[in-house]
Amino acid sequence: MSRFVGVILAGGFGTRLWPLSRASHPKFLLPLVGDHSLLQNTWKRLADVCDDIYVVTSERHVTSIRSQLPDLGEANLLVEPAERSTMPALTWAALEIEKRAPGSVVASFAADHHIENEELFAATLKTAVELAGSWPLVTVGITPTSPATAYGYVEIATQISQQSFEVARFVEKPKAEIAQEFLDDGVHLWNAGMFFSRAENIIEKVLALHPEIHAAAKELAETGDSSRWLELEPLAIDHALAEPLSVKNEVAIVKAEFEWTDLGDFAALAKLRESDDYLEVNGSGFVLGSKPVAIVGLKNIAVIETQDAILVTALDHAQEVGQVVKKLPPDLR
Amino acid sequence: MSRFVGVILAGGFGTRLWPLSRASHPKFLLPLVGDHSLLQNTWKRLADVCDDIYVVTSERHVTSIRSQLPDLGEANLLVEPAERSTMPALTWAALEIEKRAPGSVVASFAADHHIENEELFAATLKTAVELAGSWPLVTVGITPTSPATAYGYVEIATQISQQSFEVARFVEKPKAEIAQEFLDDGVHLWNAGMFFSRAENIIEKVLALHPEIHAAAKELAETGDSSRWLELEPLAIDHALAEPLSVKNEVAIVKAEFEWTDLGDFAALAKLRESDDYLEVNGSGFVLGSKPVAIVGLKNIAVIETQDAILVTALDHAQEVGQVVKKLPPDLR
Repeated sequence: MSRFVGVILAGGFGTRLWPLSRASHPKFLLPLVGDHSLLQNTWKRLADVCDDIYVVTSERHVTSIRSQLPDLGEANLLVEPAERSTMPALTWAALEIEKRAPGSVVASFAADHHIENEELFAATLKTAVELAGSWPLVTVGITPTSPATAYGYVEIATQISQQSFEVARFVEKPKAEIAQEFLDDGVHLWNAGMFFSRAENIIEKVLALHPEIHAAAKELAETGDSSRWLELEPLAIDHALAEPLSVKNEVAIVKAEFEWTDLGDFAALAKLRESDDYLEVNGSGFVLGSKPVAIVGLKNIAVIETQDAILVTALDHAQEVGQVVKKLPPDLR
Repeated sequence: MSRFVGVILAGGFGTRLWPLSRASHPKFLLPLVGDHSLLQNTWKRLADVCDDIYVVTSERHVTSIRSQLPDLGEANLLVEPAERSTMPALTWAALEIEKRAPGSVVASFAADHHIENEELFAATLKTAVELAGSWPLVTVGITPTSPATAYGYVEIATQISQQSFEVARFVEKPKAEIAQEFLDDGVHLWNAGMFFSRAENIIEKVLALHPEIHAAAKELAETGDSSRWLELEPLAIDHALAEPLSVKNEVAIVKAEFEWTDLGDFAALAKLRESDDYLEVNGSGFVLGSKPVAIVGLKNIAVIETQDAILVTALDHAQEVGQVVKKLPPDLR
């Protein structure tokens, strides 16, 4: 098997988990489920499978990440001049990895997802790494367990092996009706944002499809100059690489059976984490905070108290919490 | 006009306004509307009309009341050995007042109601005091402005003067349907808990109807012995005196036009007091607290934060908040 390097993309904010998740202390740094942060859990899952692990992040999280990941090598933390979404970050990592360990297969992982069953996860990754020897791009698809409208989907085509398929197309977050069809039809999987490819392959494809990203990442890798990088528009791997390659039938997908969630909002969190105790009269909810909470006459709400803010949301509107953040003064973001 | 003495019954808790209202710092001590406490506002309204004012309360509120009411005379604060509702309290006050200023008309007032338009209030009181010269008991009825189910009602009978009527009967808090009928029929007024009578008359009627209350109050007034008082069952003036006398057509009522509310719950408070600022996405509510609050996907709720607790209630369930208090540990009551 090829040398396999995991790249954890420790960016984003998780605005829909405000006020727990904050610009200065985003979702991936928080111990949302269990005793360790989502980043620490991501690291732990990968440590058993990867030959090496890189983390890409921005300046303001360096101290926290160093503190949370004592095993992260000095040269393995790539500090972006500014967050530009996942494609520039992965391109930079691919350049560094190809330079230091040519021939490696790399794979991108979000720092803030939650996965149950680490053995199934490891087995899936091994299958994906093997496929990446012969396919330009490989992704992992999660078997849907609900008609989720918060996730992107991947439609599968011809079967390659017991667990893997050609990708027909990537599909944006669907409306509820379509999501139900996807759940029923058996050919749509959740897009978990994991992308596997040989590092040199990523570099070559990005050079062809997005030369400005290639140039910016190369400049950063070779001279440390951030001027081109700062001019980049944010662009995700899904749109930059996965969709264009899928049109040319160059993407394979491994169907995974482990439980996965992006923990995107308090409704998702409420399914995984026990609520704090609270008092209720004709009420129910998911409560996190330090003060005693009473809920009266309201069902399926979340009450989230932090040191400096309180959020009260209907759990079936939890996706809208991110809109609050846009209205907040900077010190509360 | 007779000498007129107001008796403010500063008892009760206001559990439906928890966590603002607490056993140690109940509703009447709070500045719920405006800068002064409900007790202070009650005092101020009465000071213009009464020749003297008494306050009946229990030991634990003495310090707060003395601090809030600097004009309250040393001998005019009657400290109950224990709260036994309004009838024992008024009986004791009547005994003290009749001893010190024989021939006075006394009237009971809750310490925690809110009234707008003090001139109309004063005029109504004068009418009531005059009527109390010839009627055993006089009450004040508020013209309903909504089909309230949280108030008791008084049904009026024969008209006595432009503003006053014989009472046909007192009616307990009605169900919604009945409350709507009461609002429409024009012969039902809200019972505001104000009762006027000559002090000697109260003493005589209580002796006849509830000798145990008379004996306990007399013992307290004459010897300070609280043993009988402590054995009393709590009993409200409405049940103890007003209902039995109304059956004998001995109760008159003055129809008042001033705005009145018992500020019984957060729905009532939300109508009178501006909400603190809050952020919302598809949400609306009444918010009081110190931390910034965001409401998402929930309408017409109240979010009440105090130093040691948070209440989230649907405003149309605000009457149920009192049930929370029964479930609370003692330090949070």
